[in-house]
Amino acid sequence: MTWLENSWYVAAWDSEVDRAPFARTICGVPVVMYRKLDGNVVAMRDACPHRLLPLSMGIKEDDSLRCRYHGLRVGPDGAAEEMPLKTAAVKKAVCVETFAVAEKHRFIWLWVGDKAKADPALIPDLWPCSAEGWVFDGGYSPIACDYRLLIDNLMDLTHETYVHNGSIGQPELMEAEIETEVDGDHVRVSRWMPGVDAPPFWRGALKKPGPVDRWQICHFLLPSVVMIDVGVAPVGAGATIEDHDQGVRGFVIDFMTPESETTTHYFWGMARNFAADDPGFTAGFRKQQNVVFNEDIVVLEAQQRSIAANPDLKLRAYQIDEGGVRVRRIIDRARERQMEPA
Amino acid sequence: MTWLENSWYVAAWDSEVDRAPFARTICGVPVVMYRKLDGNVVAMRDACPHRLLPLSMGIKEDDSLRCRYHGLRVGPDGAAEEMPLKTAAVKKAVCVETFAVAEKHRFIWLWVGDKAKADPALIPDLWPCSAEGWVFDGGYSPIACDYRLLIDNLMDLTHETYVHNGSIGQPELMEAEIETEVDGDHVRVSRWMPGVDAPPFWRGALKKPGPVDRWQICHFLLPSVVMIDVGVAPVGAGATIEDHDQGVRGFVIDFMTPESETTTHYFWGMARNFAADDPGFTAGFRKQQNVVFNEDIVVLEAQQRSIAANPDLKLRAYQIDEGGVRVRRIIDRARERQMEPA
Amino acid sequence: MTWLENSWYVAAWDSEVDRAPFARTICGVPVVMYRKLDGNVVAMRDACPHRLLPLSMGIKEDDSLRCRYHGLRVGPDGAAEEMPLKTAAVKKAVCVETFAVAEKHRFIWLWVGDKAKADPALIPDLWPCSAEGWVFDGGYSPIACDYRLLIDNLMDLTHETYVHNGSIGQPELMEAEIETEVDGDHVRVSRWMPGVDAPPFWRGALKKPGPVDRWQICHFLLPSVVMIDVGVAPVGAGATIEDHDQGVRGFVIDFMTPESETTTHYFWGMARNFAADDPGFTAGFRKQQNVVFNEDIVVLEAQQRSIAANPDLKLRAYQIDEGGVRVRRIIDRARERQMEPA
Repeated sequence: MTWLENSWYVAAWDSEVDRAPFARTICGVPVVMYRKLDGNVVAMRDACPHRLLPLSMGIKEDDSLRCRYHGLRVGPDGAAEEMPLKTAAVKKAVCVETFAVAEKHRFIWLWVGDKAKADPALIPDLWPCSAEGWVFDGGYSPIACDYRLLIDNLMDLTHETYVHNGSIGQPELMEAEIETEVDGDHVRVSRWMPGVDAPPFWRGALKKPGPVDRWQICHFLLPSVVMIDVGVAPVGAGATIEDHDQGVRGFVIDFMTPESETTTHYFWGMARNFAADDPGFTAGFRKQQNVVFNEDIVVLEAQQRSIAANPDLKLRAYQIDEGGVRVRRIIDRARERQMEPA
Repeated sequence: MTWLENSWYVAAWDSEVDRAPFARTICGVPVVMYRKLDGNVVAMRDACPHRLLPLSMGIKEDDSLRCRYHGLRVGPDGAAEEMPLKTAAVKKAVCVETFAVAEKHRFIWLWVGDKAKADPALIPDLWPCSAEGWVFDGGYSPIACDYRLLIDNLMDLTHETYVHNGSIGQPELMEAEIETEVDGDHVRVSRWMPGVDAPPFWRGALKKPGPVDRWQICHFLLPSVVMIDVGVAPVGAGATIEDHDQGVRGFVIDFMTPESETTTHYFWGMARNFAADDPGFTAGFRKQQNVVFNEDIVVLEAQQRSIAANPDLKLRAYQIDEGGVRVRRIIDRARERQMEPA
Repeated sequence: MTWLENSWYVAAWDSEVDRAPFARTICGVPVVMYRKLDGNVVAMRDACPHRLLPLSMGIKEDDSLRCRYHGLRVGPDGAAEEMPLKTAAVKKAVCVETFAVAEKHRFIWLWVGDKAKADPALIPDLWPCSAEGWVFDGGYSPIACDYRLLIDNLMDLTHETYVHNGSIGQPELMEAEIETEVDGDHVRVSRWMPGVDAPPFWRGALKKPGPVDRWQICHFLLPSVVMIDVGVAPVGAGATIEDHDQGVRGFVIDFMTPESETTTHYFWGMARNFAADDPGFTAGFRKQQNVVFNEDIVVLEAQQRSIAANPDLKLRAYQIDEGGVRVRRIIDRARERQMEPA
């Protein structure tokens, strides 16, 4: 098991789940999700307690789900409401496992682990996805690789040059120094580029001439979030690495949810504080992100296959991998903690 | 191993096997079958005793089979008749395993187990498939599930409502009580519906107005037969659950032969004592059965996948599953018997 | 492991590898090959020493290969020339495994095993592929079978009748006696047919009327070569089984390189000392060989599947298999030798 127990993982975009049953395997467990009439999301094991037919093949009836095989009906609390033969009395013990879920920052979060410990306050703080004056949009891609390979990829600001040389790669990025800092379970990898010429994308967003201070700051949060703070501010406007709302700013948002040990649900998007009322920008940027992430997917799936084909070789880490190394250490430590007796 | 040794399993419809070699894996063993000039069926291991090339790729020569690789020729008794080089003397020890086969009730039966114990009298009695005045017809479907999931399905008269709601499901069926009886290795699950309105299918078959007594009686026989006795008789004609030839009657015939532990050869059909001289009815009914069984296949294959995806969950049995539970107990007992030292 | 360590295996036709990276798995190891500017071939493990992305996805820069992920650059000696961040100092310890290669007889040979022991003098002597006055041409086929099944096939002159009855099979071949001789690690299986009528192919090649002496002589050489010396000479010209350059002569050339234990790279061709300046003959013959070998592939892949489906059965060997039996003994002995402590 490569993931963490007792953690919130993103199970879906809010818009993916509606009243019809929606199936997705989260951290190795088949889950069915749907919305009740009041809009709240229900998540349960995707297997009828009777003969294990996926409940996602079933029939929605009000807030309940009826199995398509023998008609056992479970309510949103997972308890049987009708046994297969309607005339039989409902047995209290018959129920399907339900999962704690929460909806926040445009995502549906599912608690993996002991339900009693599920606390919405522990949901990672993806504030730019919900902040006033910000717009958030994105997409979903399944990837056939260990979710940690994707984190390695995102915590490393140098692969753009080669993986993305057809899209966003810029040789000048290589010249700026990268700083890696760890604070508890938070890793920050940053590049501060003072007084540079803004690239066309940021020049268009800023709508002002003149040199800019530019930044790229990757944040990792447990269990599996990477947020990359990017933007520019006019030189002299007072932007610093700690405080830089003087210009235009965006967050590349990434959540990696393990499906299995070698497959990942990748939820990605962009939150921004500019062009907020321009839906054409939103759609165009989503399309561009998709192109860029598809370049990563080709590399990540080839890397996963190569790891399997070269069992005698190990991944190595150099200076540029420091962000990923620190993240893996934090994940490993958290996994060790969860294995300790309580 | 989920199946029984020393039992007759259906290997094919009689019409599937002709003089050309026909390959099918029965209970984990690759088998080649063909008919001799006298029409009798031969079954042998589908591997040349020389270099294991499937004999089913070979060349039929009179009643013998010549391997397509080096020309070793085996007779219908499995013994080599010619070695690869024709000039070499035939070695008596060179032979391919043959299987006891029998042809009965329109099926070709293959004895799985100790050939010395093969007794045609042990072939399950599918009498409606051969009785005078009855017509029998059907089809074949491969299914990617444990054969016992299909038996569970057939021994349960309640799943029609949900699985077959697009075809034969009828809510009124749910109202009749179901009785399960066990007599040795025979299980009977029955529903007797006295004085009901005949559904259109049976009304058309009976060709008489007025209320009817209706029945559905599932019989399980070892190793893997389910016969479902269905029909209607006019009220007052004297039909009882034990004796009901007063109206129109059919048997849904089902034989499940394991291919592997998770794949099954499903032989299905309908024997009937009405519209016996109407080939249009026969063809139309076969087509309808195929539609209905395809609805089952979707459910059964999803159930098999769900069992694999939820290794921590167990199938549960309620009142409606009593037929299947009894059958599994009989199969398990027979498997235990076969493991005891003789 | 079914193959030999410390041996030269054919990795590619010389024409398959050019300056662009070319990927192929040899004896279980992913390898990338390319030509340097001077035309010499480089072969290395197809995995970047940094994060294991296949180097075959990389960018060729002069004689070096730059990884497409983070830009680590390795030279043709396998050593890193640039670390992922160009500004970082190159670490001497960072390198990718390289393989000894040699180019001979139109093939690129790769040394599997201890590089220090790689000696080009150990390359099997496929002299007809390089001899003056001879033309050599052929093709490549991947086959899903153990390479030894293909050797068995080639060392046996009798399977032509059945496998190739649509192409080159000739019943009269069966009448000639076959002789098998072993000399150290060399196996020779031969058929000498004195004073026979030349078949159309050889009649056309010889361009003379009258009876001929005809031969088929299979040579096996370690680790995995089969050369079949075929041809005819006019009766009375003095041809013997040891010395027969009096007529027209060809060598069917076969090299079987294991990809895995159950898949093989098959390099095949024909070297000949007639019609040497007729490219139409060359192209036509290659096409015909391809047809014939595709007949073998169907049989060999079915045989491999049958071996897996009948784990309780063993391959048997009769008189006609003596060539293959001797070869397997030599291969087994060589594998035992390599497992002994040095």
